[in-house]
Amino acid sequence: HHHEQIHVMPEHENLNQTPTPLEVRREGSNVYIKMTAQITDIEINEDYTYKAWTFNGEAPGPLVVVEEGDMIHFTLENMDPAMDHSMDFHAVHTAPNKGFANVPSNEEGTFVYKASSPGVFMYHCGTDPALLHIANGMHGTIIVKPKGGYPTDDEVAREFVVIQNEWYEYNDIENMTNGVPKHVVFSTKALHDGQANTNGVVGALINQPFQVKAGEKIRFYVANMGPNETSSFHVIGTLFDDVYIDGQPANHFEGMQTVGLPASGGAVVEFTLKDAGEYKFVTHQFNHVQKGAVGKIIAYDG
Amino acid sequence: HHHEQIHVMPEHENLNQTPTPLEVRREGSNVYIKMTAQITDIEINEDYTYKAWTFNGEAPGPLVVVEEGDMIHFTLENMDPAMDHSMDFHAVHTAPNKGFANVPSNEEGTFVYKASSPGVFMYHCGTDPALLHIANGMHGTIIVKPKGGYPTDDEVAREFVVIQNEWYEYNDIENMTNGVPKHVVFSTKALHDGQANTNGVVGALINQPFQVKAGEKIRFYVANMGPNETSSFHVIGTLFDDVYIDGQPANHFEGMQTVGLPASGGAVVEFTLKDAGEYKFVTHQFNHVQKGAVGKIIAYDG
Amino acid sequence: HHHEQIHVMPEHENLNQTPTPLEVRREGSNVYIKMTAQITDIEINEDYTYKAWTFNGEAPGPLVVVEEGDMIHFTLENMDPAMDHSMDFHAVHTAPNKGFANVPSNEEGTFVYKASSPGVFMYHCGTDPALLHIANGMHGTIIVKPKGGYPTDDEVAREFVVIQNEWYEYNDIENMTNGVPKHVVFSTKALHDGQANTNGVVGALINQPFQVKAGEKIRFYVANMGPNETSSFHVIGTLFDDVYIDGQPANHFEGMQTVGLPASGGAVVEFTLKDAGEYKFVTHQFNHVQKGAVGKIIAYDG
Ligand SMILES: [Cu+2]
Ligand SMILES: [Cu+2]
Ligand SMILES: [Cu+2]
Ligand SMILES: [Cu+2]
Ligand SMILES: [Cu+2]
Ligand SMILES: [Cu+2]
Ligand code: NA
Ligand code: NA
Ligand code: NA
Ligand code: NA
Ligand code: NA
Ligand code: NA
Ligand SMILES: [Zn+2]
Ligand SMILES: [Zn+2]
Ligand SMILES: [Zn+2]
Ligand SMILES: [Zn+2]
Ligand SMILES: [Zn+2]
Ligand SMILES: [Zn+2]
Ligand SMILES: [Zn+2]
Ligand SMILES: [Zn+2]
Ligand SMILES: [Zn+2]
Repeated sequence: HHHEQIHVMPEHENLNQTPTPLEVRREGSNVYIKMTAQITDIEINEDYTYKAWTFNGEAPGPLVVVEEGDMIHFTLENMDPAMDHSMDFHAVHTAPNKGFANVPSNEEGTFVYKASSPGVFMYHCGTDPALLHIANGMHGTIIVKPKGGYPTDDEVAREFVVIQNEWYEYNDIENMTNGVPKHVVFSTKALHDGQANTNGVVGALINQPFQVKAGEKIRFYVANMGPNETSSFHVIGTLFDDVYIDGQPANHFEGMQTVGLPASGGAVVEFTLKDAGEYKFVTHQFNHVQKGAVGKIIAYDG
Repeated sequence: HHHEQIHVMPEHENLNQTPTPLEVRREGSNVYIKMTAQITDIEINEDYTYKAWTFNGEAPGPLVVVEEGDMIHFTLENMDPAMDHSMDFHAVHTAPNKGFANVPSNEEGTFVYKASSPGVFMYHCGTDPALLHIANGMHGTIIVKPKGGYPTDDEVAREFVVIQNEWYEYNDIENMTNGVPKHVVFSTKALHDGQANTNGVVGALINQPFQVKAGEKIRFYVANMGPNETSSFHVIGTLFDDVYIDGQPANHFEGMQTVGLPASGGAVVEFTLKDAGEYKFVTHQFNHVQKGAVGKIIAYDG
Repeated sequence: HHHEQIHVMPEHENLNQTPTPLEVRREGSNVYIKMTAQITDIEINEDYTYKAWTFNGEAPGPLVVVEEGDMIHFTLENMDPAMDHSMDFHAVHTAPNKGFANVPSNEEGTFVYKASSPGVFMYHCGTDPALLHIANGMHGTIIVKPKGGYPTDDEVAREFVVIQNEWYEYNDIENMTNGVPKHVVFSTKALHDGQANTNGVVGALINQPFQVKAGEKIRFYVANMGPNETSSFHVIGTLFDDVYIDGQPANHFEGMQTVGLPASGGAVVEFTLKDAGEYKFVTHQFNHVQKGAVGKIIAYDG
């Protein structure tokens, strides 16, 4: 059943805040980032519009990219009239009761921490109950680029971001806790100029497939938001020649068919599409494909 | 409830096609493989006979073994009167819309691709909806033997194949998508002369245990078909001295109690049974043991 | 619903055996360990007291710590009047039908085996059906300290044990097989003098948080008992600088946000809490946090 209206909070009725662009400004190795917590409708499927709790009106939230060693000066503006929200970046070291503290409605909070470890990391609202805030849309990906790069940087011709997340019955913590996901989806965020930027909606990466050349090496930065499920990430018609677990250059695997990601795990996966044609990617937990977890790459003759 | 008759397609009623032997012929590094898609009854349990969608009348399908660098010339004969089927080998690079294309009823399709990466890989029918084709029985294992072997080849005295797969309510995509498996089972396929070759049925590897000598090093090629569940593969009474994730020699682990396999993951695991006696192996997700996922090894005095 | 009384066996009614201290005695590299199987009430939550099947009256059972190469002389005294129990240590090599054999009610059994491989291992009752014995409380952790230590031993200032386990409807194998866990919890066992020793009850590691100094390197020995679920172990506000899968020094990872543990998997994870404050740890499968899987570390100024 679809009963998304039932659990809408009174303060959120008729509220649909326009997406707010991510603000990023760099001064040397200091990076000033501003994000919002806001309530924005996301059309997960033609029959399921979700009044999502979001960062910046996107779910997953905007992609954040910094360099290893950067000092992040992060500001969260909480535009939600109904409750506190917060930000937990998996990429940083901070005391959560201070660095990831709640920001009340209509207030701003600023937090400073260093991105000391390279990789592909989850971020999310950590306000209690975190399951509800994550499942309602408050999650995203931060990439911390390794100082020394990846050993395979020279081979890679093109790179993309792929994010997996689940959706449940609207704002229904009982369903989120004991049920199975209603939808499992992939989305992408623009890492380079001209790339698509989608929400985690059914068909996002079928309708806007990635475009590459046959024979070139492709890199995906993959991140699994959960909140509950693991991922078995796989690209049909190829193998991963190189894999870096959590995007850490030291955690190197080769020749993998499928990468298992725990809830909130990440990976860099690199592969080649040998021949021109259409290649789908999935979590090989095929019950989740049935619910939306499939995307497409089109490889053109080089 | 067992209501396996309800979802049988009209074209499949009273159809039970005799298993067809796998055809494999080698000319230098060219390997010519012929398989069938066919409808064959599999007795999963004394009370649950499943009119499976199969490769060659087996579920899991026949074991395919090639060498790294081989060119595979694969022919699929579709003997199913009711629908298209196809073949997706995780071991190869090909554009799926061509190399893994659908083969209509009563037709044959031939596809050519190279086995360029060594390991233990899943194969399966990829025809839409793949969840239904896999869960109804269309999956199996292909081993690509590494050119340089494994560093531990000289230590291994005996080797076997172990495959995990789930069964659901018959042909019931709603149950496959949202339910829990009805049975989770292990099977084996003959890798060497005289070895057993079973279907994925309850008790297969209890009734036909593997036989080894105490003290010798054993290798298992393990593959998890899913379609939905991960595996936590474990042999009771020993540890894995060496593990190669996805069977790739570069992905080496040591001294593991249990190997986590994503859906469609594989591994080579090596271990010694020190004393004569009976050793069971399981996925340590014990709800799945309760549903059939247990096999046995008998170690005799050396 | 809570109907824990319904499935209590007649022999267990009104039975609540006082916890029995673990007995450990060392002579050179021979370690003599005595444990009990006994029926003891565990208060999982204020509203859910569980007449657990336990080792020594604890669930998880007592922590066992030995050195790589030790010969374990293990005695199990079965104080349960109603049924056989047994002990399966993942750390040893033995024929399960002998070394892990059933011990009848009111009898003792003694078993000898070597701890030949270092790491963080599960132990559990293996009596059929093992799912029932594990889910009812018969599981725990054995640490085998590596002869050569870990490469990072010199950096570590403080270390703790963290164990994850699930609880289901009381003694209800149907719920354990097909349901979702009722509670997922963390516990700790004293590894050093003065450390807490808890059962796997809701809030155990919130009410008795670990205490550390900001800036020092912390090590957790983590073990996932299941019986059914994987873990996505994560400490909020930091990253794991070093990870050893299954606690085996050879299986080294760096810079991980989250460690995926299969059912019965273990790990050594090392990290630093940079600033004074409160840090929670979770399995990032947040449906399980909702059910109890959260603990706390307090970091004081150094
Ligand atoms: Cu929030
Ligand atoms: Cu988190
Ligand atoms: Cu098919
Ligand atoms: Cu596949
Ligand atoms: Cu076990
Ligand atoms: Cu027992
Ligand atoms: Na799943
Ligand atoms: Na390769
Ligand atoms: Na499972
Ligand atoms: Na070893
Ligand atoms: Na789970
Ligand atoms: Na580090
Ligand atoms: Zn929908
Ligand atoms: Zn509802
Ligand atoms: Zn490749
Ligand atoms: Zn059955
Ligand atoms: Zn049905
Ligand atoms: Zn061994
Ligand atoms: Zn409760
Ligand atoms: Zn009951
Ligand atoms: Zn760190």
